[in-house]
Amino acid sequence: MAADHSTPDPHGAARPDQAGAAPDPATVAAGLTVGVLGGTGDQGRGLARRLGLAGNRVIIGSRNPARAVAAAASVGSPPQVTGASNEDAARGSDVVIAAVPWEGHRDLLAQLAAALDGKILIDCVNPLAFDSRGAYPIRVEEGSAAEQAAQVLPGSTVVGAFHHVSAVLLLDPEVAEVDLDVMVRGDDRQATDLVQALAERIPGARGIYAGRLRNCAQVEALTANLVSINRRYKSHAGLRITDI
Amino acid sequence: MAADHSTPDPHGAARPDQAGAAPDPATVAAGLTVGVLGGTGDQGRGLARRLGLAGNRVIIGSRNPARAVAAAASVGSPPQVTGASNEDAARGSDVVIAAVPWEGHRDLLAQLAAALDGKILIDCVNPLAFDSRGAYPIRVEEGSAAEQAAQVLPGSTVVGAFHHVSAVLLLDPEVAEVDLDVMVRGDDRQATDLVQALAERIPGARGIYAGRLRNCAQVEALTANLVSINRRYKSHAGLRITDI
Repeated sequence: MAADHSTPDPHGAARPDQAGAAPDPATVAAGLTVGVLGGTGDQGRGLARRLGLAGNRVIIGSRNPARAVAAAASVGSPPQVTGASNEDAARGSDVVIAAVPWEGHRDLLAQLAAALDGKILIDCVNPLAFDSRGAYPIRVEEGSAAEQAAQVLPGSTVVGAFHHVSAVLLLDPEVAEVDLDVMVRGDDRQATDLVQALAERIPGARGIYAGRLRNCAQVEALTANLVSINRRYKSHAGLRITDI
Repeated sequence: MAADHSTPDPHGAARPDQAGAAPDPATVAAGLTVGVLGGTGDQGRGLARRLGLAGNRVIIGSRNPARAVAAAASVGSPPQVTGASNEDAARGSDVVIAAVPWEGHRDLLAQLAAALDGKILIDCVNPLAFDSRGAYPIRVEEGSAAEQAAQVLPGSTVVGAFHHVSAVLLLDPEVAEVDLDVMVRGDDRQATDLVQALAERIPGARGIYAGRLRNCAQVEALTANLVSINRRYKSHAGLRITDI
């Protein structure tokens, strides 16, 4: 189980010193190369754009490397943001965001298990279906998309995050800052600390620890409620956690 | 299904006029007598206290009417807040909040089906379990507590709301205003509009429409994440919806 893995150190320069002091997550996050699997979709491109603007190197992955290169060009310029196959994006990155459609989620991650071994996999996939009445959650056998990822990636540390971040706002050049908290869930404290710090590289976002992997399903499914809210209020709704 | 019921008009004085204009939900909400089933628990007492302070008449219900009377005395004074049996609270109220423990949820509501007929039942029950690692959601056969309520109360209009409202803050005399949005879900527009208006009688709260009954499970379950957040940050976390 991912809970028992020590977090991989994605950045040699920030390795703990001899006394064992933990590296500062914000410093480590600043130096990460971030892969975005399925990064040609709006959510993936939006995250790639904001992390690239923040100064991270980003590798957009796609089944079709040419499409990944085009997506990268649409949100940044090399070497800051580049495109590659999903496998090369996974291999070349320190941490990897899965922003793939739910339908191909399990198979793609299973194929990339070796490339993702020892890395943090950030899952932001929402298992949702749509009909005339709007969005609703799909029941997932493993509990949630994130738990499915943990099951097919026994050598990776899976963290759930970025589910409620509006792709429209991430991609909008008029939007300098978003107004939302990123609920980060996982069983490994060092990994969730790092993903919180990575979330905070997006201007306006705050990374909040919000529970273990077993509490991912409802966060993924809550995206259906945000879809309902957006329909009713013509908004790009996000969440803020109060009293912290 | 609750979706096909017209909303009961809980307050004769605010009945639509001959031209069929809908009554203002805030005006209707101000005149409601609110029953709180299982109102001797912290959540029920907290809601009773705030709604009583706002000027609503509130009837706290309990299996044990003497305990309900004592709970009422702890949060208000008669005739503003009174105590009764669950059945008398249901019969004597215009809208009824179910704030009962999950364990007895289905049986209690089934027993009260006649008393709740034609009324709005607001379900705020969180089907959660706890272990040493914190809270986690219980899978509910009907999908969610609110959908279970709708199934056993075919003559009532069920609305989900008030899941993320901290009982501690509701009961704290030092807290003049809460800082949160109440996510209101249901299949009947007039009912959700009214419950949104009722939520806004709690100072600081905003009532937000957040989807249909089929999207209740994740809102109920998200309370487990708020428990995790509260443990980590020593907070009484609530949610705000941004961009609306």
